[in-house]
Amino acid sequence: MTDRVVLAYSGGLDTTVAIPYLKKMTGGEVVAVSIDLGQGGEDMESVRQRALGAGAVEAVVVDAKDEFAEQYCLPTIKANGMYMKQYPLVSAISRPLIVKHLVEAAQEFGGTHVAHGCTGKGNDQVRFEVGFTDNNPDLKIIAPARDYAWTRDKAIAFAEENNVPIEQSASSPFSIDQNVWGRAIETGFLEDLWNPPTKDLYAYTEEPSLGQAPDEVIISFKAGAPVAIDGRPVTVLQAIEELNRRAGAQGVGRLDMVEDRLIGIKSREIYEAPGAVTLITAHEALEDVTVERELARYKRGIDAEWSNQVYDGLWFSPLKKSLDAFIESTQEHVTGDIRLVLHNGAIQINGRRSEESLYDFNLATYDTGDTFDQTLSKGFVALHGLSSKIANSRDRRFAK
Amino acid sequence: MTDRVVLAYSGGLDTTVAIPYLKKMTGGEVVAVSIDLGQGGEDMESVRQRALGAGAVEAVVVDAKDEFAEQYCLPTIKANGMYMKQYPLVSAISRPLIVKHLVEAAQEFGGTHVAHGCTGKGNDQVRFEVGFTDNNPDLKIIAPARDYAWTRDKAIAFAEENNVPIEQSASSPFSIDQNVWGRAIETGFLEDLWNPPTKDLYAYTEEPSLGQAPDEVIISFKAGAPVAIDGRPVTVLQAIEELNRRAGAQGVGRLDMVEDRLIGIKSREIYEAPGAVTLITAHEALEDVTVERELARYKRGIDAEWSNQVYDGLWFSPLKKSLDAFIESTQEHVTGDIRLVLHNGAIQINGRRSEESLYDFNLATYDTGDTFDQTLSKGFVALHGLSSKIANSRDRRFAK
Amino acid sequence: MTDRVVLAYSGGLDTTVAIPYLKKMTGGEVVAVSIDLGQGGEDMESVRQRALGAGAVEAVVVDAKDEFAEQYCLPTIKANGMYMKQYPLVSAISRPLIVKHLVEAAQEFGGTHVAHGCTGKGNDQVRFEVGFTDNNPDLKIIAPARDYAWTRDKAIAFAEENNVPIEQSASSPFSIDQNVWGRAIETGFLEDLWNPPTKDLYAYTEEPSLGQAPDEVIISFKAGAPVAIDGRPVTVLQAIEELNRRAGAQGVGRLDMVEDRLIGIKSREIYEAPGAVTLITAHEALEDVTVERELARYKRGIDAEWSNQVYDGLWFSPLKKSLDAFIESTQEHVTGDIRLVLHNGAIQINGRRSEESLYDFNLATYDTGDTFDQTLSKGFVALHGLSSKIANSRDRRFAK
Amino acid sequence: MTDRVVLAYSGGLDTTVAIPYLKKMTGGEVVAVSIDLGQGGEDMESVRQRALGAGAVEAVVVDAKDEFAEQYCLPTIKANGMYMKQYPLVSAISRPLIVKHLVEAAQEFGGTHVAHGCTGKGNDQVRFEVGFTDNNPDLKIIAPARDYAWTRDKAIAFAEENNVPIEQSASSPFSIDQNVWGRAIETGFLEDLWNPPTKDLYAYTEEPSLGQAPDEVIISFKAGAPVAIDGRPVTVLQAIEELNRRAGAQGVGRLDMVEDRLIGIKSREIYEAPGAVTLITAHEALEDVTVERELARYKRGIDAEWSNQVYDGLWFSPLKKSLDAFIESTQEHVTGDIRLVLHNGAIQINGRRSEESLYDFNLATYDTGDTFDQTLSKGFVALHGLSSKIANSRDRRFAK
Repeated sequence: MTDRVVLAYSGGLDTTVAIPYLKKMTGGEVVAVSIDLGQGGEDMESVRQRALGAGAVEAVVVDAKDEFAEQYCLPTIKANGMYMKQYPLVSAISRPLIVKHLVEAAQEFGGTHVAHGCTGKGNDQVRFEVGFTDNNPDLKIIAPARDYAWTRDKAIAFAEENNVPIEQSASSPFSIDQNVWGRAIETGFLEDLWNPPTKDLYAYTEEPSLGQAPDEVIISFKAGAPVAIDGRPVTVLQAIEELNRRAGAQGVGRLDMVEDRLIGIKSREIYEAPGAVTLITAHEALEDVTVERELARYKRGIDAEWSNQVYDGLWFSPLKKSLDAFIESTQEHVTGDIRLVLHNGAIQINGRRSEESLYDFNLATYDTGDTFDQTLSKGFVALHGLSSKIANSRDRRFAK
Repeated sequence: MTDRVVLAYSGGLDTTVAIPYLKKMTGGEVVAVSIDLGQGGEDMESVRQRALGAGAVEAVVVDAKDEFAEQYCLPTIKANGMYMKQYPLVSAISRPLIVKHLVEAAQEFGGTHVAHGCTGKGNDQVRFEVGFTDNNPDLKIIAPARDYAWTRDKAIAFAEENNVPIEQSASSPFSIDQNVWGRAIETGFLEDLWNPPTKDLYAYTEEPSLGQAPDEVIISFKAGAPVAIDGRPVTVLQAIEELNRRAGAQGVGRLDMVEDRLIGIKSREIYEAPGAVTLITAHEALEDVTVERELARYKRGIDAEWSNQVYDGLWFSPLKKSLDAFIESTQEHVTGDIRLVLHNGAIQINGRRSEESLYDFNLATYDTGDTFDQTLSKGFVALHGLSSKIANSRDRRFAK
Repeated sequence: MTDRVVLAYSGGLDTTVAIPYLKKMTGGEVVAVSIDLGQGGEDMESVRQRALGAGAVEAVVVDAKDEFAEQYCLPTIKANGMYMKQYPLVSAISRPLIVKHLVEAAQEFGGTHVAHGCTGKGNDQVRFEVGFTDNNPDLKIIAPARDYAWTRDKAIAFAEENNVPIEQSASSPFSIDQNVWGRAIETGFLEDLWNPPTKDLYAYTEEPSLGQAPDEVIISFKAGAPVAIDGRPVTVLQAIEELNRRAGAQGVGRLDMVEDRLIGIKSREIYEAPGAVTLITAHEALEDVTVERELARYKRGIDAEWSNQVYDGLWFSPLKKSLDAFIESTQEHVTGDIRLVLHNGAIQINGRRSEESLYDFNLATYDTGDTFDQTLSKGFVALHGLSSKIANSRDRRFAK
Repeated sequence: MTDRVVLAYSGGLDTTVAIPYLKKMTGGEVVAVSIDLGQGGEDMESVRQRALGAGAVEAVVVDAKDEFAEQYCLPTIKANGMYMKQYPLVSAISRPLIVKHLVEAAQEFGGTHVAHGCTGKGNDQVRFEVGFTDNNPDLKIIAPARDYAWTRDKAIAFAEENNVPIEQSASSPFSIDQNVWGRAIETGFLEDLWNPPTKDLYAYTEEPSLGQAPDEVIISFKAGAPVAIDGRPVTVLQAIEELNRRAGAQGVGRLDMVEDRLIGIKSREIYEAPGAVTLITAHEALEDVTVERELARYKRGIDAEWSNQVYDGLWFSPLKKSLDAFIESTQEHVTGDIRLVLHNGAIQINGRRSEESLYDFNLATYDTGDTFDQTLSKGFVALHGLSSKIANSRDRRFAK
């Protein structure tokens, strides 16, 4: 049987030239699979035609925008998913979805191999390959950039030698990954950590200081999911898109961080994720009102572990699934409205209302209506501190 | 022996009237202790004279600004101390310092009781009283507001009946606690969570949108402590004060949150802590560069637990001390410079440099000089995902 | 309306005399509710008649043995529920069940109050009262031993004065709580921590060294629940009962510990729980075979937190419910057989088999059939240790 | 310069033949380093002579028994180090010590390479190699069994071809690693998880049921370290050795477990560690008396993480060092005596006494002398359960 390589195909120069290259290296056929995750840019049908033109035996385009929003971004909102407390996992949550569609395409088109364009020093190779073995360990995996030391220069040379039609545009200095959830930028001069990012890096966000008027937004959630903006019902995808526009216009959601990669090195990363950052900020503020204290405290640790797992390429792992079960069980009453102001690069929460709130005016108020029985506190304080008091007495007695 | 009540004395109406009131209730004498934590306002000698005028047998003023910065704020910086990921523990870290000085004053002046002005539904009663029993369980504790239901109205009536001289100023609608680390504001109309804060609440921060020019700051740390700003050496106290001015001028550090109190209720709180938020943000950014990944991941959980302990009034607890030992052991190499831009309510990190950085350009770069051996990744990825792969295969075999 | 006090009624002297006492103190009526949790002893109908004889307006007996086993003991097995790594929560899991039935009885019989016999320095008062407020905060709570300083001596005096018929048997020196899940013993001479327990304390277990032959048992689990012993199908209740007999005959399941009570003190406790300890030990051994490594590691922390929550009286808390969701999601494949030997106070696992095992002979063996590709390890090891290597190099460079 | 390979040399057939083999493969010289960790068996000078006889240019023997006990076993006692709650890390803690001495020998003898005898599917390769790169990343690493697929059969063939004198004894069916802290056994027939271990596997422990009389032991600790047994002062090494004898004679410390290896597979392991299990059990019992509740709860998580780190070969990692700082800070008052009975495979604690105990008889007793103020409990219980009560009320209101 002929080998068939199912390739994650972006439409760019590298993966386009990879089509004839993989045919040559494996002696088999190539099926190109392109996923629309809301990354914008070119029409997906043109991408598909380019794959066929480069020699793909099949070329498939999947519109996965809603699936991505509902099955990948929404769990990230519920988990307040921020790696290192900052990064909303833009690339990390897209890889498992791409994996899923590649594995399905392999099933449909008789694929024996899967291939991706990632290098051997990033996180995405891990996310792809662990995803593949989790979903179908029989598929063989090819990572040309890593396994064949396939580079941009080699791709261009190979295209010229083999008459592969490529638009050899002036290569962008930026390495970019983007989807509706956000945008990641790496580039040479940022590898000096002291260099600030330049304005031309950004595409999803405006400069924060252009004098825009503040934009007040009300985001409504139901059971942890955004369901309306300023009273208008939205799907999760629409919520992200609208907040990308509005928060992006205010310069909200820019990140400049040094990140701990799974493969053991630190790297400098620039992200912009206006919708993601706004939604997670609002979601956390609503949890503050609707989730009980001890559960909220514990969930913060669960959220952090969830983010680590997802960052580390373990979307399909048993632990990730059980963390999901925990998180899902906390969201039933995360329902209500958060009002916030987007302005000049900052988000300021300034109101929340919820039928399912745990805030009790009569217990909290210092004014008329106070129902809190302050006499209970004396006993509480005494026993709350009792074990520490006993220990401190002992420590003083035996102080050295 | 005559009872002697050592009172945490602020100089305000309530604690001033509390002096004769406590004398009456206990039949003893009152020693007033006032602590300068950089809260500003009145001259401390006037405060002292007022206590004596109200009948205190002794009145002591302690300038604890540097002690507060170095022994209480600095550990909070090292722990990135933010309760519920937001609140830099402004009041929470001041109470143990006050406790310490009250206990010392009791020792010096023969105090048999200690007294504080907190109500029975807040956190501060816990912080005071657990602190007292941790440091000297023999001292009896009086909380007039809770134990005698002592209120503002009763205080005024008592003052009139007993000829205590008070300036009965138009009572501020705000309940405020402030020190050099920040400022906390509660007020009636914010008890409706949907009401936004009004501009007159703020004193440490300007409105974020007044058109100020961005302010770029370089903060230098040594072993986790701020030691210079823009190259000029500073003490911790000076660092906080300068950043209070500069970040405050940009509207940085305002918080509007619903907070989980230790006594079991949720409450709305407004804070402003420009210096604290700026220092912790910079400190975290420097940790991202200088602390190893697994340690950094674990420390985030330690930091959160530290913040919970401190918020919960357990500054002197055995667990808090051991968390300190962990945190202290992580700070040795948190040395270097963070450059950030303060503007319009937002902090944007844009550069970091450190001799003790763990960032390795040659491992991270995709350009000339790359020393990362990508062939190692294949084995890493395979074994990193092996246990999950085996589990997913089993799960598919037994899928229901 | 007349007050009606729903009393948790054990049939013993204290709660029997409490019936007329509560009538007198409240001026209302008393409904006695007795729950059969497999504690053995007296016939439950006699208990019921005694309550009526003492003046209860209603007396209810609930056979909750199966409910207890399935709704309370089984979750404890799944959570490997051991407080302080030792105590299988014998009393702690019985209180919420009793609470549930008292609240239901209050609903059925028009109860306005609930009452329990616990003192003010133990854990059970917390478990009862938090359970009551979690399930019906409108019920008023009476704890005569704590609120009225009701003691054994007062009860006897009151019975004599009021002609309440009691058998004033020579009071046992032991304070005992027991149910099918285990037995807890406190007694005066054990309050000296250096005194060893005496043989007469024990009722569920034989002395370990009587020369019994070893007893080999095969326990079969399905999705975390015990379903057969030595091939014979059992309910959860039957599994506990059979293992109480068999492990008890071997002296297995005795505990002598110093325990951290919720109210802040340490206390000496003796437990015997032969069935519970055997079932949890077997369950953990089966998890070792059927649960993936990272999930298993994380679950150990979840299990410990679950045990803390349950010990602390928070069975009905939001956090406990979300921990349950996590745990439940891990049990689907905890199916298979564990063989163990009960002998002389020790449990020795010596075999396990499971269709749903994650153990893979071909990956584990060093003999013929080995499919593990050892060449993958070099890369794994290199990157697994990379971040630590970089940090150690830095540390050496800056060693002081 | 000539390459010099510093080899971890056990004296067995495989590493003996590895000496000429490594010379051949590298063209360099071999320095053999043997470490006495109390593994017993052959005289170490004979081992040294055999290395020289096989062609080693230098052969070094290090008596590291006390160093091992004090620097590696003692931290394990303080951390209650048990991987998967059971395995006291017998091999795991010996590897970093061996690493340290190999790195020192490389320094002393001009070593350019280090070599170890581990395969590519176990944990020990990781512990060796991460240890090497942590301590001296310039040393090149050779693992003949993995890198050259070096096997027992190849070793014998190579010895015959090259006239290496070997005693080709009937090869033991067991693969064993042992030191004073314990003994690990793997063997083919145990790879079927249903097969029970046979009696001939064991060397450190007797059968538990031979009718020995119980052995009561009093172990005294000072700041977490064992310092006396039955009143006689001991070093840590002596404590381990004596308890190996006494607990071993009672069959205490046998383990049969399925273990999660770092490289992603599960494996069956048999261990015997009588001294280790007894010391850790006693240490935990003393912590129960001397460590405050919240610290003890948190430390259990720290201990588990410490065990994971050490098992995973990360003895020298930054996280391990900070966990050590936490643990060390908890041990100051872990001082006192534990009395326990070793018998028939079981350890039964039955007494503890400590000047630095946190147990307070007057707070715990129900008899005369009780100083606990039970009236404090009502308020404590009410506020302890308040946030859960509010949440349960909300949940009922919105129940679906």
